[in-house]
Amino acid sequence: MNGFERVGQSLPRPDALDKAMGKTPYVDDIQLPNTAVAAILGSPASHAIIRNIRTGPALSHPGVLAVLTAGDIPGKNAIPMIREDWTFLAEKKAIYPGEPIAIVVAESSNAALAAREKIELELEELPAILDPEQSLEPGAPQINPLGNLLSEHKILSGNLDQGFEESDVIIEGVYETGYQEHAYLEPQGFLAVPDTEGRITVLGSMQCPFYVSNAVKAILGIPEHKIQVIQTPTGGAFGGKEDFPSLFGGLAALAAVKTGRPAKLVLDRRDDIIMSSKRHPARCYYKTGATKDGVLKACEVTLYLDPGAYATLTPAVLWRSTVHCCGPYRIPNVKVTALAGATNKVPCGAFRGFGTPKVIFAMERQMDKLAESLNMDPLLIRGKNALKKGDQTITGQDLPFSVGLSQTIEKAREMSRWEEKRNAGFPQKGSLKRGIGCATFFYGVGLGAGGRKHDRADAYLQIKPDGTVLFAVGTVDMGQGMQTVLSQIVAEGLGGISLDAVQMLPVDTTRVSDSGPTVASRGTYTSGNAILDACGKLMDIMKNVAADMLQCTPSDVLLKNGRFFEKAKEKKIPFGEVAEECHSRHIPLDTHGFFDSPPTSWDPATGQGKAYVTYSYATQIAEVDVDIETGEVKVLDIWAAHDVGKAINPQMTAAQIEGGVLQGLGYALMEFIETDDRGLIQNPSFSTYIIPTSKDVPPIHPAIVESAYPEGPYGAKGFGETPLMGVAACIANAVSDATGSDITTLPLLPERIKYLPQNTSSLK
Amino acid sequence: MNGFERVGQSLPRPDALDKAMGKTPYVDDIQLPNTAVAAILGSPASHAIIRNIRTGPALSHPGVLAVLTAGDIPGKNAIPMIREDWTFLAEKKAIYPGEPIAIVVAESSNAALAAREKIELELEELPAILDPEQSLEPGAPQINPLGNLLSEHKILSGNLDQGFEESDVIIEGVYETGYQEHAYLEPQGFLAVPDTEGRITVLGSMQCPFYVSNAVKAILGIPEHKIQVIQTPTGGAFGGKEDFPSLFGGLAALAAVKTGRPAKLVLDRRDDIIMSSKRHPARCYYKTGATKDGVLKACEVTLYLDPGAYATLTPAVLWRSTVHCCGPYRIPNVKVTALAGATNKVPCGAFRGFGTPKVIFAMERQMDKLAESLNMDPLLIRGKNALKKGDQTITGQDLPFSVGLSQTIEKAREMSRWEEKRNAGFPQKGSLKRGIGCATFFYGVGLGAGGRKHDRADAYLQIKPDGTVLFAVGTVDMGQGMQTVLSQIVAEGLGGISLDAVQMLPVDTTRVSDSGPTVASRGTYTSGNAILDACGKLMDIMKNVAADMLQCTPSDVLLKNGRFFEKAKEKKIPFGEVAEECHSRHIPLDTHGFFDSPPTSWDPATGQGKAYVTYSYATQIAEVDVDIETGEVKVLDIWAAHDVGKAINPQMTAAQIEGGVLQGLGYALMEFIETDDRGLIQNPSFSTYIIPTSKDVPPIHPAIVESAYPEGPYGAKGFGETPLMGVAACIANAVSDATGSDITTLPLLPERIKYLPQNTSSLK
Repeated sequence: MNGFERVGQSLPRPDALDKAMGKTPYVDDIQLPNTAVAAILGSPASHAIIRNIRTGPALSHPGVLAVLTAGDIPGKNAIPMIREDWTFLAEKKAIYPGEPIAIVVAESSNAALAAREKIELELEELPAILDPEQSLEPGAPQINPLGNLLSEHKILSGNLDQGFEESDVIIEGVYETGYQEHAYLEPQGFLAVPDTEGRITVLGSMQCPFYVSNAVKAILGIPEHKIQVIQTPTGGAFGGKEDFPSLFGGLAALAAVKTGRPAKLVLDRRDDIIMSSKRHPARCYYKTGATKDGVLKACEVTLYLDPGAYATLTPAVLWRSTVHCCGPYRIPNVKVTALAGATNKVPCGAFRGFGTPKVIFAMERQMDKLAESLNMDPLLIRGKNALKKGDQTITGQDLPFSVGLSQTIEKAREMSRWEEKRNAGFPQKGSLKRGIGCATFFYGVGLGAGGRKHDRADAYLQIKPDGTVLFAVGTVDMGQGMQTVLSQIVAEGLGGISLDAVQMLPVDTTRVSDSGPTVASRGTYTSGNAILDACGKLMDIMKNVAADMLQCTPSDVLLKNGRFFEKAKEKKIPFGEVAEECHSRHIPLDTHGFFDSPPTSWDPATGQGKAYVTYSYATQIAEVDVDIETGEVKVLDIWAAHDVGKAINPQMTAAQIEGGVLQGLGYALMEFIETDDRGLIQNPSFSTYIIPTSKDVPPIHPAIVESAYPEGPYGAKGFGETPLMGVAACIANAVSDATGSDITTLPLLPERIKYLPQNTSSLK
Repeated sequence: MNGFERVGQSLPRPDALDKAMGKTPYVDDIQLPNTAVAAILGSPASHAIIRNIRTGPALSHPGVLAVLTAGDIPGKNAIPMIREDWTFLAEKKAIYPGEPIAIVVAESSNAALAAREKIELELEELPAILDPEQSLEPGAPQINPLGNLLSEHKILSGNLDQGFEESDVIIEGVYETGYQEHAYLEPQGFLAVPDTEGRITVLGSMQCPFYVSNAVKAILGIPEHKIQVIQTPTGGAFGGKEDFPSLFGGLAALAAVKTGRPAKLVLDRRDDIIMSSKRHPARCYYKTGATKDGVLKACEVTLYLDPGAYATLTPAVLWRSTVHCCGPYRIPNVKVTALAGATNKVPCGAFRGFGTPKVIFAMERQMDKLAESLNMDPLLIRGKNALKKGDQTITGQDLPFSVGLSQTIEKAREMSRWEEKRNAGFPQKGSLKRGIGCATFFYGVGLGAGGRKHDRADAYLQIKPDGTVLFAVGTVDMGQGMQTVLSQIVAEGLGGISLDAVQMLPVDTTRVSDSGPTVASRGTYTSGNAILDACGKLMDIMKNVAADMLQCTPSDVLLKNGRFFEKAKEKKIPFGEVAEECHSRHIPLDTHGFFDSPPTSWDPATGQGKAYVTYSYATQIAEVDVDIETGEVKVLDIWAAHDVGKAINPQMTAAQIEGGVLQGLGYALMEFIETDDRGLIQNPSFSTYIIPTSKDVPPIHPAIVESAYPEGPYGAKGFGETPLMGVAACIANAVSDATGSDITTLPLLPERIKYLPQNTSSLK
């Protein structure tokens, strides 16, 4: 029994049919007359002094309206993000391949792209730094305008030396992970439209309309009331549209203002892969100690993220890596040193998981190696150390509620028939060696202490006289189903009206105040709570009027299934009738609701504090066959048990698990950006950067655990990133189980897989 | 000394430059790809049974997408307005010339117009009723589906017979006035755009977005949350875009839904003049009695409006005529009978003045004739009877405040040098005979008791982190300057910030709840008050934060010229800094404000009650030269003194007076719709329907009187219609003064002017 009427129901997505039928207009589908097309000239070199930019030859190309460089920026050549090192257009130096140097604005895409080739760049190439550790060595050339150390974080808890002394086994390992390309179906795109009275509207594919508004303000140097940012239906993002839209939206706005025309900037796939952010590669040094009973005593981590040339979101990503790098376990003695040293490569930013997949891979390999050296079941050792309600995290945060980790372990264990399979062992079949592996992990919901400045949300709610409802929020649907989930929350919050009666408006910075970015699995939680605040206000008003209509006191009025009634009485008045009555009485039914995230804390010197308002937890298990002759890994099944607090829409929760797992499978097995010795990407296309297709999808078995988060809407906490996060870890553990080799590098390209039969055993 | 910082300032209109430069996009300027064009086939007959409509020949015309008739309406073929007699498309009968019977939707305007001619109508013509009195005679054929009596109102106050007995002079007269065409620069136009998820956006030139939303709901039969209505920049309206947009917007929406494409319906001038509403012609029977001292004792009025075939706004217009027909005077004994009988002509609706210009003409002629028979100065007799604070109107309404009538009489008298000129007399110069005449009149502000159901307003206000401001309301700028005035009220309400820091958003039914129509001079008053409600809420919040920043108590915080300070202290914090601080503290600065009009009342049996929340007053004086050979009237000067409560923008108030007076001059002298013996309009073009040009503009002398209305924003009450309303009356009185003839008919076409020298006197 769900206990709710609209929440917890697997209701169909209102946007699904139009999207499946190809009717949904994405930004590139919007055709306005007189639209100019912009194309970016990115640096061909990874590190160079720009001696001269000759735009003349491009300007004289037929159809070209303008060729713009840094000097054409009326506002500030600085993109607002965490650190002020990032420019819209390179001025004196280019510091990564693809860094925008100029934009061509022309009558057509063909003209813009052809003219782009005619811009003559005089560059003096400099040596490129390609490794974050080298970047931070003393004496290393400083490639970033504010210095190479883009970010650092630390945790110091307990007494590390003592912890290792108390350990019976100590495992060390160095783990390396690579890039992941977002591969959203719809590339980055913007359409900037100048309007009367000095206004500009910027439409586009984005996660953070308020960030884009700040970027447009910066580049144009105009006040905020002249800017309107509207998110168009977004064909995937996964974090890739959190930072770079500030750059692309800003450049589109510049093009529009300089030509006086609507200006469209839509990247082709090659430009998109070369020029926009990726998941950070990482190198993580781990040393973990446990007692012979498998109780963790100490963990020391030094982790380097490869952030590329500019900081963009790296300080936030690095911080999340720091908080999560020791896994969802009780560990009394911890030292974490996390660093990001600038390299002459594309800036890395947000990608589903936001710094955690790499450290989950590392820590979960450590846990398996501890288990192996203790001859302990891998799930058992995790269960022993798993955080429970009442425990403290490594940052000293208490967990008074909503810790569903153990339930996820049990669920995954049961679904996968873990013991049965491990006890039976896996006989080799031909060249196929089978293995099974697990991972347990967690994820702080929301922006946490690191991002609290952005962590608030506003919602607008309008009930029409016929009882149907419009609402607007500041967080976007990028395909993850935000629209559906929030609509369900509205329907529930208004007493169980039909989902058909609820319509979400496009996300538009003139409809609600700053609601932060749509990241960190915060959308449902923050916008959902803002919506419930608004619903509460309107429900109070409607209950008073309903009480008048029912001739009872407001406190006796109940609302269920969209009808008002007095408890224990027959007479029911439909929601729409009460709405109509309010309209007749001149009682307006529109309002704003607001949500401000609860306090968090962080002491940068010790890495102690209440890092996140709450966490979601998961356990994933993978069963694989490894072809020991070719190194190919075939995933046979993945069982994914996720604690989501409350599944607002169970079918969508399961779908998000399936999609995320598949994305994690790509990260684990096949997705690999090749860069040459100057840092240039060699495979910027899907024929050479391999992502999973329908033929790669294994059976995925989602399971939902609901350990309610009391401050979430109906107990929900964000979880949308978690399905991806542990997949590489459990597949790596399964491959190690199958092959006997230590897996320390992602992706698990076939050529990297070693078979060490002496380390395997058919009996465990 | 104004006492205010932004209100009461003649600040430039933010929209003016773009409009003057031709940059403002009107609805017909909006080009979306794939837009279909719709054209209406109007009935060629004034009254006919529709036997058959053969659409086939039109459908086969190249480029035609659809030919739609009543049977194609998915919702209801009934336009929501006051009475439910009005249809979108005629079904069994056509009852006025130009009544829409079908719409052709095609790839282009040419195709639509050509195909329109191919629709074959089989009509059986019926006799047409062309006079409202005949329409109401017993036995008259009923032409309207709900009967010919479209509306009636009455006032019964005191004892009429006794009143006449107490009168020393009794004047009777029959006054006839004709149509006036709105002649807005931009014709009626709509663009309906279907969207995903069953939504539709309807953009267009309109005064009442919420009326249009209701019409779209009716014709399509869809719920309100699927409808978005956006008012595009509107090139004039004057009341002509209050009712018919419901028809045209509904038809555009039908065309869009039936073709699945954006559909544009923009009327050419000929269609616009033939098919859309006009000022009601009228015939008014007056009998007015006064003592020999000029004190009014009794007034009996029977007035007929010619409403055309459907009621549309007639019940409201007729009601306003009723309330105002005896002028701004104290009269103890009154009987008014007001009737509207359906005729087979285009429905008449709102036109600046809304039923008052005709009765002002009549009553002011009566007043002049009373003055003449008593040998009394026309201004003097008006002054004697003029309503003052503390008086009661003929509906028994007390006037406790804001009665600036006497000041307007004084101002006009003084400006025009009235006595001096009348005492000097006017010698004839050649064929030119000079005269001077006056009119005093009043206007109930807002919708009054008759329209209270619509009389509320909602406003949205958002203060951005940089201190600039966005706001949205539900009433429109149709050229009258609503945007400017409301922006000034925002600027004032937020403590004197710069007008440049304020931006109004397009009027959009998804941004605010029902705010009624933009009519009845209610926009400034209702939306202004709603804005001030919102400002108050945000000011409280900001003052609290400012107090924290200034380290004082909130009650000591003052705000002036956009800066917060503690009284008597030096330190001032700019508005933008406090806004930024609120943003940092996660305190949202957006909210809605609301205004509900104060109670009014009306007893339909007696016509007694508080008819309007307040009234604005005016006195206008015209000096004319009449060519007694040709009958041409040349207006030499018009002095117009208007009590507006508070002039939010004095330059715009003066401009509105000038524009309105010119429109009144057209009504008085030259604007004349010719209909034939079947009721068909013969002169649907500006070459034959003559409106004033720049060559007709006399010197116009505006004067502003400010008798503050305590419940209006900064004391303002609406006044925008009044400049037109009395012009015909004072010109007619001046012409009568010059020629000695009794003027009883408008317009004063040259051929109608008689010269009766025996009735004139050079000495008065």
